Amino acid sequence: MTEAHPFDRATALTPTGDGRSAGATSHDYANLAGPFGGATAAALLRAVVEHQERFGDPIAQTVNFCGAVADGEFAISAKNERTGRHTQHWSLALTQNDEVRATASVVCGTRAPAFSYQPEAAPSAPSPEAVPVAPTSGMMNWLQRYEFRFIEGIPSFNKTPHPEPANSHSLWWVSDLPARSLDYVSLAAISDAFFVRMLHVRGTIGPLGTVSLTTYFHATPEEIAAQGTTPLLGAAHAKRFNGRFHDQHMELWGKDGVLLATGTQIVWYKDDG
Amino acid sequence: MTEAHPFDRATALTPTGDGRSAGATSHDYANLAGPFGGATAAALLRAVVEHQERFGDPIAQTVNFCGAVADGEFAISAKNERTGRHTQHWSLALTQNDEVRATASVVCGTRAPAFSYQPEAAPSAPSPEAVPVAPTSGMMNWLQRYEFRFIEGIPSFNKTPHPEPANSHSLWWVSDLPARSLDYVSLAAISDAFFVRMLHVRGTIGPLGTVSLTTYFHATPEEIAAQGTTPLLGAAHAKRFNGRFHDQHMELWGKDGVLLATGTQIVWYKDDG
Repeated sequence: MTEAHPFDRATALTPTGDGRSAGATSHDYANLAGPFGGATAAALLRAVVEHQERFGDPIAQTVNFCGAVADGEFAISAKNERTGRHTQHWSLALTQNDEVRATASVVCGTRAPAFSYQPEAAPSAPSPEAVPVAPTSGMMNWLQRYEFRFIEGIPSFNKTPHPEPANSHSLWWVSDLPARSLDYVSLAAISDAFFVRMLHVRGTIGPLGTVSLTTYFHATPEEIAAQGTTPLLGAAHAKRFNGRFHDQHMELWGKDGVLLATGTQIVWYKDDG
Repeated sequence: MTEAHPFDRATALTPTGDGRSAGATSHDYANLAGPFGGATAAALLRAVVEHQERFGDPIAQTVNFCGAVADGEFAISAKNERTGRHTQHWSLALTQNDEVRATASVVCGTRAPAFSYQPEAAPSAPSPEAVPVAPTSGMMNWLQRYEFRFIEGIPSFNKTPHPEPANSHSLWWVSDLPARSLDYVSLAAISDAFFVRMLHVRGTIGPLGTVSLTTYFHATPEEIAAQGTTPLLGAAHAKRFNGRFHDQHMELWGKDGVLLATGTQIVWYKDDG
């Protein structure tokens, strides 16, 4: 029997018989404090994907990070709010010691052949093999669970900010480490694997945290299955930093330039400017 | 006593003493069936804005349209999930006959002076006075509650689709009709006032509906107050149409090119291509 991938251990859930599931944070995906937010998002999506009432495939997910998730056990409740003819809506909460640490909504839907068009073409990029892997040794554990190959926009961890705001845009190849075939749950995590834009624009890291994260899954199950372990191409940028909150927008492309997911998040930050 | 603006009537809520509020859809904001989704989003935001436990100003809202909202009365429940030092998280549900028709999450937060930067400049555009108002007479009522001045990307309501997909991008000036000073609640509605991208890309309208809508409020209360009744500049585009779902991304700028809000939505559509 092969050992489970660290990602599957980090997001594993056990039904507890009361309509809830039990999970636990994993040292493998530790962030500066608590777990990588993408692992939390992934566990919340898994609660729907593995639910016996689930109908259709993931279409949209919003995760609200209400409070710091602590290292250790958590419970997830998943409520099927409504199952329609084409879509199904879920409301979720992640609790620790009966305190809500995250809420989420997930929409599933049935895919069918339809008018298809992708206005957002993948940006041109060198092949993954041509781009060096960013060194993450000694950094937060979750960074060591991905191979990042920066093409444009390398984050900085300086002590003093750039004299002028730098470009918020970044472009990279990303893949699970060790390699793991893509599924919706890992795509949910990767959607939060972009470095916070403050590291790009200011070049410093101060107190900050994602407040809300929304991901749209554009890929059909067949397109997800076709990715295997091939790196995904990801782009992210910000539109405004103001009064302690800034946004971030991202795209993730797969083989043949297929747009697999798009997303947005809003981040609280403290930086007196 | 002056009569209330139609928007305020359409989104008015009355606390019913059980932690819920009562409202009703308005003929003034009627869509093809049921109310304009932006009016529903606005009523949900109002439930938080007017809540006695509300702390800070709106930062983010996600609305999930679970089922068709029918014309008539509705109830909104608003649960304060967690109030932190900087943010407050709400979970909401809109019900009719005790059936969930929409769920929502709202994040409020305290704004403070901080590093400020707006990478997304407003696109150049002629002044509102230089752009004719799009005729909406005889169309759905909610369209007659706004003045739309299309600069780029005019929607089409043809019987047969364009031979090739057209540009998904549009740019317009928008303002409430009659004029109304901007607030967060009206900004939430305007964030959903972009025409669905199918009208731009395909030029036809078939069965479709927004499934999930996320809006980020970048403007401080002072910036909101400074807008008054001046038209807002809005841009929207799509990134992918696939398997009956497509996304839409938008920006709304105010005076002096300040980015007031950004947002995204995912739309179900039926179009066999």
